[in-house]
Amino acid sequence: MSPSRDSSSPAPTAAMIVIGDELLSGRTRDANTPHLAQALEKIGIRLREVRIVPDETEAIVEAVRALSAVHDHVFTSGGIGPTHDDITADAVARAFDRPIEINPEAHARLAAFYEARGIEMNPARLRMARMPAGARLIDNPVSAAPGFSIENVHVMAGVPSIFREMLAGLLPRLTGGAPLLVRGFLLRRPEGEIAAALGAIAAAHPDVAIGSYPSFRADGHETRIVLRSALPAALEAACQALTAAFADLVPDEHGPGNG
Amino acid sequence: MSPSRDSSSPAPTAAMIVIGDELLSGRTRDANTPHLAQALEKIGIRLREVRIVPDETEAIVEAVRALSAVHDHVFTSGGIGPTHDDITADAVARAFDRPIEINPEAHARLAAFYEARGIEMNPARLRMARMPAGARLIDNPVSAAPGFSIENVHVMAGVPSIFREMLAGLLPRLTGGAPLLVRGFLLRRPEGEIAAALGAIAAAHPDVAIGSYPSFRADGHETRIVLRSALPAALEAACQALTAAFADLVPDEHGPGNG
Repeated sequence: MSPSRDSSSPAPTAAMIVIGDELLSGRTRDANTPHLAQALEKIGIRLREVRIVPDETEAIVEAVRALSAVHDHVFTSGGIGPTHDDITADAVARAFDRPIEINPEAHARLAAFYEARGIEMNPARLRMARMPAGARLIDNPVSAAPGFSIENVHVMAGVPSIFREMLAGLLPRLTGGAPLLVRGFLLRRPEGEIAAALGAIAAAHPDVAIGSYPSFRADGHETRIVLRSALPAALEAACQALTAAFADLVPDEHGPGNG
Repeated sequence: MSPSRDSSSPAPTAAMIVIGDELLSGRTRDANTPHLAQALEKIGIRLREVRIVPDETEAIVEAVRALSAVHDHVFTSGGIGPTHDDITADAVARAFDRPIEINPEAHARLAAFYEARGIEMNPARLRMARMPAGARLIDNPVSAAPGFSIENVHVMAGVPSIFREMLAGLLPRLTGGAPLLVRGFLLRRPEGEIAAALGAIAAAHPDVAIGSYPSFRADGHETRIVLRSALPAALEAACQALTAAFADLVPDEHGPGNG
């Protein structure tokens, strides 16, 4: 089931809170944000901010309160496992001043999962059923322990394979917007050389976001240009202006949508 | 020259602001944060928050103001190139209510760089010399256009190779703290099984942060355990407690410091 679409209002916005000391130490790279960003773009939800915070209650509470107040959707990853450093559920409950409880459905799912595998349910594993009162479960087809949604915050696992599966089950429930259309181009020229003309095109096409990304290759400078808009006609007009301005413009074969 | 160290005060803290629409679209992965995190850990500066924000003035101003007020150091990457979407310098100037100007030294460096290469200095390239009044330059040995420091904010390039070189030149100027010592271990057991004992050890060793990270392999569950402390004796005591608790504990050969 596709998410419902509302093309008449400004596009819904989202923020991501990535929870985990290991990300702030540089030991682990955040794989969930790029995945989330691409998934949201397909359904027309604009990811507007990402915060990486430690496994600390106050840091999580502050981020959840700040971002849930200004965005339509907030996604979190990390900190919903069974160990002592998994404190996200308690922090999110506190952020919304809600009691935390053992969610009966989550408990039942975990109990069934462990029983089928001859694994002992213990207090640590039971922690994974602790959720704010009123939470709606997000399915975990990988390892049973659900994520949850409360108000406009969707709390999911940090392990990327589980995050992806949880997100896939969640997205059809969300209201998206007009999808953002994207076109990518390449110029074998340095940014400094093309900047004036590019800036003029950007100014002349206010409904299109034009980004410019340089790289330095052994055989010379290269600039990738990415155009994004929710309005197909505006995007097409800007692409035509770009093509007219730069005779050596080529499509970016490794650009968005092209693998 | 090593950064000066102050081992008597609480460790300095830092935040990172990663600026760029392309990161929020998922098209580009943030390589600078893990690099920064590891570099800071070596000199005892604790990275406490990362924010990824769009190439938009208000978003940058808000993040700079919020984070510079609560952390000893703020690092930014992105948005200091020559194109219309490079607005970081103006946003940072605005965040501190400072005028922006052409920095004479930055201008001289760019002019010399271009002249030596027969490249035309044009208004777009000159934009890269725009900096808040009073900025201190951060050297760019790759492509000349400097980064800059203003108050406690250090503004650097988004391109990873340039970010790394800029950071390498900047770090010796900063006051660090006692370096965080780290030890990593591996257990071929699921988190749920070890959580109770691990939690007890964490509670008994409050000067040591103990993180637990699960993975799921074809041949069974695995949990990585990372212990971090600025106090060598405390770290050693916690490692011994861990070894005593888990007979099958092994060093994590792919863990921190081990490649």
